[in-house]
Amino acid sequence: MLFMYNEEIASLFTNLEIRVGDRVKVTSADGTFEGILMPRAEVGRNDIIVIKRTDGYNMGIRYAKGIKIEKVSGTKGAFSFPKVEMSHDRSLKTINMLYTGGTIGSKIDYVTGGVYMLTKPEELLAEVPELHGIANMEISNLMSIASEDMTYKEWIRIAQEAAAVLNKGSEGIVITHGTDTMHYTAAALSFMLEGVNAPVVLTGAQRSSDRGSSDAFSNLICSSHIATKSNIAEVGICMHSTSSDGQNIFIRGTKARKMHTSRRDAFRPINSVPICKVDTKGKIEYTSDYRHVGKGSKKVKALTGFEPKVALVKVHPNSNPDIIDYYIGMGYKGIVIEGTGLGHVPTSPSIKELSWIGQIRKAVDSGIIVGVTSQCLYGRVHENVYRNLRLLRGTGAIFCEDMMPEVAYVKLGFLLGNYNKKKAQEMLNVNIAGEITQRTRFDEFEVE
Amino acid sequence: MLFMYNEEIASLFTNLEIRVGDRVKVTSADGTFEGILMPRAEVGRNDIIVIKRTDGYNMGIRYAKGIKIEKVSGTKGAFSFPKVEMSHDRSLKTINMLYTGGTIGSKIDYVTGGVYMLTKPEELLAEVPELHGIANMEISNLMSIASEDMTYKEWIRIAQEAAAVLNKGSEGIVITHGTDTMHYTAAALSFMLEGVNAPVVLTGAQRSSDRGSSDAFSNLICSSHIATKSNIAEVGICMHSTSSDGQNIFIRGTKARKMHTSRRDAFRPINSVPICKVDTKGKIEYTSDYRHVGKGSKKVKALTGFEPKVALVKVHPNSNPDIIDYYIGMGYKGIVIEGTGLGHVPTSPSIKELSWIGQIRKAVDSGIIVGVTSQCLYGRVHENVYRNLRLLRGTGAIFCEDMMPEVAYVKLGFLLGNYNKKKAQEMLNVNIAGEITQRTRFDEFEVE
Repeated sequence: MLFMYNEEIASLFTNLEIRVGDRVKVTSADGTFEGILMPRAEVGRNDIIVIKRTDGYNMGIRYAKGIKIEKVSGTKGAFSFPKVEMSHDRSLKTINMLYTGGTIGSKIDYVTGGVYMLTKPEELLAEVPELHGIANMEISNLMSIASEDMTYKEWIRIAQEAAAVLNKGSEGIVITHGTDTMHYTAAALSFMLEGVNAPVVLTGAQRSSDRGSSDAFSNLICSSHIATKSNIAEVGICMHSTSSDGQNIFIRGTKARKMHTSRRDAFRPINSVPICKVDTKGKIEYTSDYRHVGKGSKKVKALTGFEPKVALVKVHPNSNPDIIDYYIGMGYKGIVIEGTGLGHVPTSPSIKELSWIGQIRKAVDSGIIVGVTSQCLYGRVHENVYRNLRLLRGTGAIFCEDMMPEVAYVKLGFLLGNYNKKKAQEMLNVNIAGEITQRTRFDEFEVE
Repeated sequence: MLFMYNEEIASLFTNLEIRVGDRVKVTSADGTFEGILMPRAEVGRNDIIVIKRTDGYNMGIRYAKGIKIEKVSGTKGAFSFPKVEMSHDRSLKTINMLYTGGTIGSKIDYVTGGVYMLTKPEELLAEVPELHGIANMEISNLMSIASEDMTYKEWIRIAQEAAAVLNKGSEGIVITHGTDTMHYTAAALSFMLEGVNAPVVLTGAQRSSDRGSSDAFSNLICSSHIATKSNIAEVGICMHSTSSDGQNIFIRGTKARKMHTSRRDAFRPINSVPICKVDTKGKIEYTSDYRHVGKGSKKVKALTGFEPKVALVKVHPNSNPDIIDYYIGMGYKGIVIEGTGLGHVPTSPSIKELSWIGQIRKAVDSGIIVGVTSQCLYGRVHENVYRNLRLLRGTGAIFCEDMMPEVAYVKLGFLLGNYNKKKAQEMLNVNIAGEITQRTRFDEFEVE
């Protein structure tokens, strides 16, 4: 099959000597449309002819008998988008873009029909002329990887670059990133960037930038507005507020989580509200307290230690606590338990070997720091309400308040990488970057 | 300290020879209140005197200088609630209550101030006189355990009893259960009860039944209405719709998840909408398709095999795939991966030993069934959109559509416990009990 189109369309193209990248004119019952022939998307219907119009949007035309296709002009060699140089406008602020890859920097592969990753961020910016009116953009092309492939090495590289540009006087940073693990990176940067003195905005896209449905452009625009106009001295994630374009939310880096596999509004604040809303016109509405950009020129420090020997362990009915022996044997330094409800682990009276209490005590006694969180995600763990919770507390495990499991994991790796064990243990439940919110009376289990 | 009250109050009680369970009269600036002296809740303020009024509600009175406390009458021996025998009303349906324990069957311990579990479900029912007007209730006192301690052995016990009473002609079942793992049990019963022919309603409480803020009563009442009046032939969870009393939702057993550690409306439908809403007056509003109670007397079968050697493994940045070797070595038969986004596992080009692809292939080659789900929880996994997903698919791992990780875990254990490997593999992605919903065009990654 040619470009993943169905056989009938593919053979038509072959007969007409039309290739992807050629300018074509398509006349259907709905009218006549001209544009550059695009490859079909990798999944979905294979009888939709896709052309990119001059306004940059893709449109699909259902193939039907009687449809007429003409070649207007060909492309020379491989097709590529026109390059646009960004000019420097002295009336605008200068912000920095750290490019790391991800769907926002992806396009459809013209040969295989798959998605491939851009290596030049300029190609992405060239498609968002609106950015020219918002800020001058200096680009650091750090890497070009999918976010599921991010490790602490990449977190450290990004933190170092962010600290470097901030210390050179950058007034704001936009980091483009794959969405899958963007919230892990956001938490890591929140902890690693000590004394951050400007908005550090992570953004990405749920659909690649050459699809009509892409959220890449409005996410880039909204993120640039926050990096330019806001006085938020925090790391956060700026993604769609709803599934429609137009309004984004900016969520604290330690309180954001990807909560949907494909929706544009996948990132939600957990145990928190967004710091602000922002629209594509640049209107910012603050909805929460935040750390303000201070006066003076404080230096930003990147604390780039990270201990990879930390495990995230989810308990559930029938889960076998022997896994703790594995982690002790492998020399792990930290374990974050994703408990149930208020932070329970099974004590399983009916199957004694499935009780976790003794094993967690063993881990603590072996020198491992054990943190307790909840797989509910929303809400706060509690070490007192039930007897089983008090048993767990008795092992020396630390109940991590309203931290998400993923954030507690990143924090424990950060603490063990930068401090000694005693200090790491003390700091696990001390708020560093908004990861712990204060208890309110609603968190108490009072008799009313 | 007496009953966990503060020292000043405790010594006042001692001087007046007042014990918990005595009828007391308290005169404060706000008025005079009479009721049975209750122990203070285990956590929260220790200067609130709690009395149970004749209407059954607890009230708290802040202790302050000048407050007057009198003993009206004592209790003989240990205090206990009056027992009420449930009478049989021929004009009402008869439903079954399977009692398993949990917070809904818990009270504050009069000696330690902690929470203890009732062993007699009648004590719970005695406090909900409204139930007498809804149905005759036959009680099976199965167990009295906290839900974090549930294992497949308890699931099987509950499934057997449910099948037994349904096959004796029960027209509906209410199962009282702790909330922490109620959704795991709901999924297990959904798979285990083949040919379920009446509503099977799990319910519980986020606050114990002797607290004024308890959701126990309205959850029991709403659940009994569904068990009595609805024609839903499915297993589901009936808990609060919002944080206020009055309206509950009934969520399919394979689509419910506890999403908050403490709120009354903690249970949410994931990738689904509730089957119905129900209020305490018995008004049922259907909001989704469901399996209807059929005519005739079909037998219900309890499929009670369960394979405990199934692991639920969450991947994240820096997660080490060597854990797969551990599970292979321990003879595991199934692994459910909680991937990121659309179902990714790290391929980590910068730290090669952190790539999961080879390890998952090894698991599949060792005969382990590997299912792929998403830690986003909401949305559907996809095996095609990105190259890394196609690599994962190439290992032989099965992408589990829109099943939650926990549900895929329970299903895989169920399948491996009741069928041979080939059949289990085939059925993992076949809808059995509403755990997989059909794709819509919004799930396709079409070029628009």
